[in-house]
Amino acid sequence: MIRSAILFFLCPFFSFISLAQTTEDSLMIKKISDEIFMNGQAYNNLRFLCKKVGPRLSGSPGAALAVEQTARMLREAGADTVYLQPCMVPQWVRGEKEIGKAVLNTGKSIPLNIVALGNAVGTPAAGISAGVVEVKSFQELEALGADKVKGKIVFYNYRMDPRHINTFRAYGEAGVYRSQGPSKAAALGAIGVIVRTLSPVLDDNPHTGATRYDEDKPKIPAVAISTNGAVELSAFIKEGKVKSVYIKTNCKMLEDVLSYNVVGEMRGVEKPEEVITVGGHLDSWDLAEGAHDDGTGCVQSIEIIRAFKAMGIRPKRSIRAVMFMNEENGLRGGTKYAEIARTEPRKFIMALESDAGGFTPRGFGFSATSTQNAKIRSWQPLFKPYGALEFNEGGGGADIGPLRPLGTALIGLNPDSQRYMDLHHARTDVFEAVSERELNLGTVVMAAMVYLVSEYGL
Amino acid sequence: MIRSAILFFLCPFFSFISLAQTTEDSLMIKKISDEIFMNGQAYNNLRFLCKKVGPRLSGSPGAALAVEQTARMLREAGADTVYLQPCMVPQWVRGEKEIGKAVLNTGKSIPLNIVALGNAVGTPAAGISAGVVEVKSFQELEALGADKVKGKIVFYNYRMDPRHINTFRAYGEAGVYRSQGPSKAAALGAIGVIVRTLSPVLDDNPHTGATRYDEDKPKIPAVAISTNGAVELSAFIKEGKVKSVYIKTNCKMLEDVLSYNVVGEMRGVEKPEEVITVGGHLDSWDLAEGAHDDGTGCVQSIEIIRAFKAMGIRPKRSIRAVMFMNEENGLRGGTKYAEIARTEPRKFIMALESDAGGFTPRGFGFSATSTQNAKIRSWQPLFKPYGALEFNEGGGGADIGPLRPLGTALIGLNPDSQRYMDLHHARTDVFEAVSERELNLGTVVMAAMVYLVSEYGL
Repeated sequence: MIRSAILFFLCPFFSFISLAQTTEDSLMIKKISDEIFMNGQAYNNLRFLCKKVGPRLSGSPGAALAVEQTARMLREAGADTVYLQPCMVPQWVRGEKEIGKAVLNTGKSIPLNIVALGNAVGTPAAGISAGVVEVKSFQELEALGADKVKGKIVFYNYRMDPRHINTFRAYGEAGVYRSQGPSKAAALGAIGVIVRTLSPVLDDNPHTGATRYDEDKPKIPAVAISTNGAVELSAFIKEGKVKSVYIKTNCKMLEDVLSYNVVGEMRGVEKPEEVITVGGHLDSWDLAEGAHDDGTGCVQSIEIIRAFKAMGIRPKRSIRAVMFMNEENGLRGGTKYAEIARTEPRKFIMALESDAGGFTPRGFGFSATSTQNAKIRSWQPLFKPYGALEFNEGGGGADIGPLRPLGTALIGLNPDSQRYMDLHHARTDVFEAVSERELNLGTVVMAAMVYLVSEYGL
Repeated sequence: MIRSAILFFLCPFFSFISLAQTTEDSLMIKKISDEIFMNGQAYNNLRFLCKKVGPRLSGSPGAALAVEQTARMLREAGADTVYLQPCMVPQWVRGEKEIGKAVLNTGKSIPLNIVALGNAVGTPAAGISAGVVEVKSFQELEALGADKVKGKIVFYNYRMDPRHINTFRAYGEAGVYRSQGPSKAAALGAIGVIVRTLSPVLDDNPHTGATRYDEDKPKIPAVAISTNGAVELSAFIKEGKVKSVYIKTNCKMLEDVLSYNVVGEMRGVEKPEEVITVGGHLDSWDLAEGAHDDGTGCVQSIEIIRAFKAMGIRPKRSIRAVMFMNEENGLRGGTKYAEIARTEPRKFIMALESDAGGFTPRGFGFSATSTQNAKIRSWQPLFKPYGALEFNEGGGGADIGPLRPLGTALIGLNPDSQRYMDLHHARTDVFEAVSERELNLGTVVMAAMVYLVSEYGL
């Protein structure tokens, strides 16, 4: 904080932004805000994406429809050019609903509320059945050793730490069990894995999400269990009542298929060769409408084009709204975008991603050079009326990450994180969970950042 | 901002808060936060208040049950003393569901989605029927004059201004039509009033809320219509299709009845005579569960007692959690609390109210002396980890307002306002609309403020 303040005052670089200019920018941002709150289409577009398109996992018919429909939205928003960037994507399919149960010593069994983890292999057609070992950490797993794990199903019952104010921090800590848990268990001879859902609330909604197999370990089936289910299963295990656990999943990875990023561009009038990218990811998990993850990021990006066009703003630099494909289980779209960018005779000066939910914006996270950072920070006061004052170092977004080697400043929108993990990757991530005003307010601060970079460069 | 910064640096008064002390406070607040996020009971208590008690308008059986149950919660939280403060409250009853329709020139009629405004008189048993005049402002009403208003039903179709970032500002502007609209229309001879619901979203939920009759004007029936209903009715009127409007309401004001504020106190160990009040209001409108308005303020206040007791905190000054009765349609509880306070041999140094919803906290508003203000502002950095940095002058709460003449510093919790007006006074203000983490985070910053005042006084 102090360091950046000193930078700000000492650096003559910034003196070109006069007080008059700041006032003008402030008024322009207020006009953008008014346009978005009065005439915004983001909420209507989100309703369409959630209710008419629905789930849109890479390679699915929903994803194909989402490509077509967001291209239409971009054209209707008034983008100068709208086009698709072809890319091959993995095609993982869940198949029929999973079955899970814990067989008790009494012979009775209790159902387990599970869903297969994304990218996971399925069980044999007959399912798998084995004794279960519960651990709360990798340390506990290692302590058990191969002797006690071999042939078993490992149950990672790590509770997301509710004490972190920012839920992404708790998610980061807990996420390793979903991503690395299966291979670490397989390394000790386990035949399957159950991971407690990554959610701070107790409920009956298991959350899916991608797992990642080590290539040199056996690929074993892996499921998430709802938080309530995890608590119940743990209690039965503690009481020594569980004889075995049965899991049947029907998921599999098919051949890669062709899909697309969707791009809509407003050409800059002074420096069209300098490109500002603003986007979200178009794919979503198969279980939900993908409202907050990441329908909101897509419709916000489209809305910036619409609002600027409607207001007659002619940006100095080019602005691209990008719907990235395949963030959830492959990142092929983001990778492809950067790959193409490398070949274009243009300069990708900044990329802004909204992929943390359509909640009230609190600020931004930046991965940029210190010069870029200082310039961005000088704009911070302009965001005060919109409550988005948290300007933190570090951040960006999965899809825009591959642009970093091009010198692109990466910016991530940081919305309030309290509700996100409740519904992330779960069937509760639906249109109704999005507040129209929160969505619009997020768009406003994204639009303001895009506007400032388009005016002043980076 | 600058003025307060100067105050902060120049005022020798603050030098007693050393850096070591700040670190200690910061650690204590983090401990309080951890306790609330790990073991908090606010969400469970809220569920009870919403689902087992339900609506609790002053004088209703629900309100009586709420008194009993929050007293129990306070005892279970570990308050040293729990007691009731008797006060007489108005008893307004809605009666049977309202009926509204617009009769078209064709003879057909369309239903109007209405609810009676709180404190309003009912129609005669046969209902009222009359031509309708639509206005968008009092100015338009005055321009019409008695000639065109006499014998008519006035339809105030003022749309809440979506451009204000803080929705309370838009609510303030629009609220005058609900509170003053009936008497202003009656002054021109109108026989009834329809007010567009105070909500920034278009939906089918009419919001109730108190109206206020001028004593020297005829008291005419008054209802709110849903926002969708208002748009529809307005379109029919614009097309000249509406012959008359029919309204039947069954509400009435009964005799005052006895009710109570509920008070739970932790006695201070060093200066017990100095009292910190923290509260919310226990009554709610009859149509909803009163989750955000204001079940959350009640359970947050109770939770502060619980957390401090569980942690073994022995506050230097006394802390009172107060559930005020009758905020919605009379303010008798708040008035009574101050009336009793005036007679007590104690000093009411600070009162903090949470009555703006159980959403993520953004900061506080203060009505206090400049010395009190400066001291409170010196604590602002302690709230940074919890994102509650907006310290604004002005604010407090309806229930604690009557304490101001006693020199009490009044503080209002300011949560994020984006979602509040969507559900305020509507049937959608239910438990499910509250996020457990947002509720807890609000409690944390309230508890921190109470803790600091209990340690350092004001």
